[in-house]
Amino acid sequence: MPYEYYTKRRVEFSDTDMAGIVHFARFFVFMEAAEHAFLRSLGTSVATEWEGNSIGWPRLTAFCEYLNPVRFEEELDIRLRVVRKGATSITYGFVFTRDDEVVARGELKAVCCICNPEEKLRSIPIPDAVAKRIEEAPGDGA
Amino acid sequence: MPYEYYTKRRVEFSDTDMAGIVHFARFFVFMEAAEHAFLRSLGTSVATEWEGNSIGWPRLTAFCEYLNPVRFEEELDIRLRVVRKGATSITYGFVFTRDDEVVARGELKAVCCICNPEEKLRSIPIPDAVAKRIEEAPGDGA
Amino acid sequence: MPYEYYTKRRVEFSDTDMAGIVHFARFFVFMEAAEHAFLRSLGTSVATEWEGNSIGWPRLTAFCEYLNPVRFEEELDIRLRVVRKGATSITYGFVFTRDDEVVARGELKAVCCICNPEEKLRSIPIPDAVAKRIEEAPGDGA
Amino acid sequence: MPYEYYTKRRVEFSDTDMAGIVHFARFFVFMEAAEHAFLRSLGTSVATEWEGNSIGWPRLTAFCEYLNPVRFEEELDIRLRVVRKGATSITYGFVFTRDDEVVARGELKAVCCICNPEEKLRSIPIPDAVAKRIEEAPGDGA
Repeated sequence: MPYEYYTKRRVEFSDTDMAGIVHFARFFVFMEAAEHAFLRSLGTSVATEWEGNSIGWPRLTAFCEYLNPVRFEEELDIRLRVVRKGATSITYGFVFTRDDEVVARGELKAVCCICNPEEKLRSIPIPDAVAKRIEEAPGDGA
Repeated sequence: MPYEYYTKRRVEFSDTDMAGIVHFARFFVFMEAAEHAFLRSLGTSVATEWEGNSIGWPRLTAFCEYLNPVRFEEELDIRLRVVRKGATSITYGFVFTRDDEVVARGELKAVCCICNPEEKLRSIPIPDAVAKRIEEAPGDGA
Repeated sequence: MPYEYYTKRRVEFSDTDMAGIVHFARFFVFMEAAEHAFLRSLGTSVATEWEGNSIGWPRLTAFCEYLNPVRFEEELDIRLRVVRKGATSITYGFVFTRDDEVVARGELKAVCCICNPEEKLRSIPIPDAVAKRIEEAPGDGA
Repeated sequence: MPYEYYTKRRVEFSDTDMAGIVHFARFFVFMEAAEHAFLRSLGTSVATEWEGNSIGWPRLTAFCEYLNPVRFEEELDIRLRVVRKGATSITYGFVFTRDDEVVARGELKAVCCICNPEEKLRSIPIPDAVAKRIEEAPGDGA
């Protein structure tokens, strides 16, 4: 289904902090890695070329809610859903579970941009080659 | 004023990503560092001892909105405000500016917890020694 | 073979820097993750309990040599070898290849320590339960 | 003196790991940040333009020796020395101290390269504008 993706990730030592748990900022890296794996699974990438331009997806907003601490070597199940597909942006919802217990929920909104070196970023309509592969999830999203 | 704090931070090379800008997850590290500097400025710390327990402040939620890309060696002005002070938690708002242009806004909600090794985290009322030093900002927050 | 381990790792966006390549410090995280996967494959962990103490493996030295830049979404093959097994420490050698081209080589020397909270780290002979599972590689190592 | 530089850095929460100490890979970020501050202090940068090309300094080797664990909120004194200045590369030595106790020593060897987007990195003689500002330290280095 082009609006959902599932991946796993084991917590590494460098993900933890002195509180003995995964540092909260790492969840944003986990979300991003899942987003990029989703795009790869569709045969594209977060960093592509299109009509001679470099296309990227800078973030507009990022959110995470932490429900349960996660520890070293635990394995997280990460579910991504395309919560909203706009003309120039995509909003992804994420649910992190560990042994069926939800430990965190998050959201990333990314905007499609021309990211040529030496130029200002500017947003563009999602190129068809990408847009046609991604669907908005039915119902109320993650 | 015990509800506001101001700090600066220069963007480091390792803060950047292949898009040539600060990686979005780094803003959460910048927020946290400002929060901890605020607590130090009040004579306390995010990691303290209290009645024989280790006290910490795990995050409940984290949010960031990105308005303008930030690049290597640029200097960010970071303003923290205590947006809400609850019985067990504090919500901090952050505004990042570069040369008076707002480049990002964020929010962290942290909950006061006993974080003893080998025990489950459990939230507690903010100890008086800390609570009495922190005020909620007047008006509409960050 | 208890002196060798092999793993793969795909480069993530957050591994890169503004030069468009993997940030050099990330290779140390890649080495460490391979070391910990090796220990898991032997049925143990880098963080264990032993006779009521927390056992860990702080690093004594870390080295990396960079031969070729590595980029986003490339897949690295990582080979670990136990270069030396001492009474209290283990030295791991690492070779990173991409499509059979060596892109980096590294080495970590880790020392077995009691890492109880609130105590100073102190090195100890590698506990038998771990020592008996790990062998020094024959020949001249990585 | 154009062969020495001194800076300070306070350990942040996100620098620590579940062992309660600074994660070993962070020392490489600390070294790099000191290197870049040294270059700024000389009126240049690690990322510059020169004759229409982007100039950067990818690392050839990186080394660190850990003598004493470092903890959250401790302040590190970081001394950089130019250990060797070659035709195309510079080797920096670093000593980290905390209250006059040496806690770590490190070394980075960086090579001057043309780093234009879409091109292979290639090393070049250090441009005069930079080379004339940097001297090799007398004696035996860091």
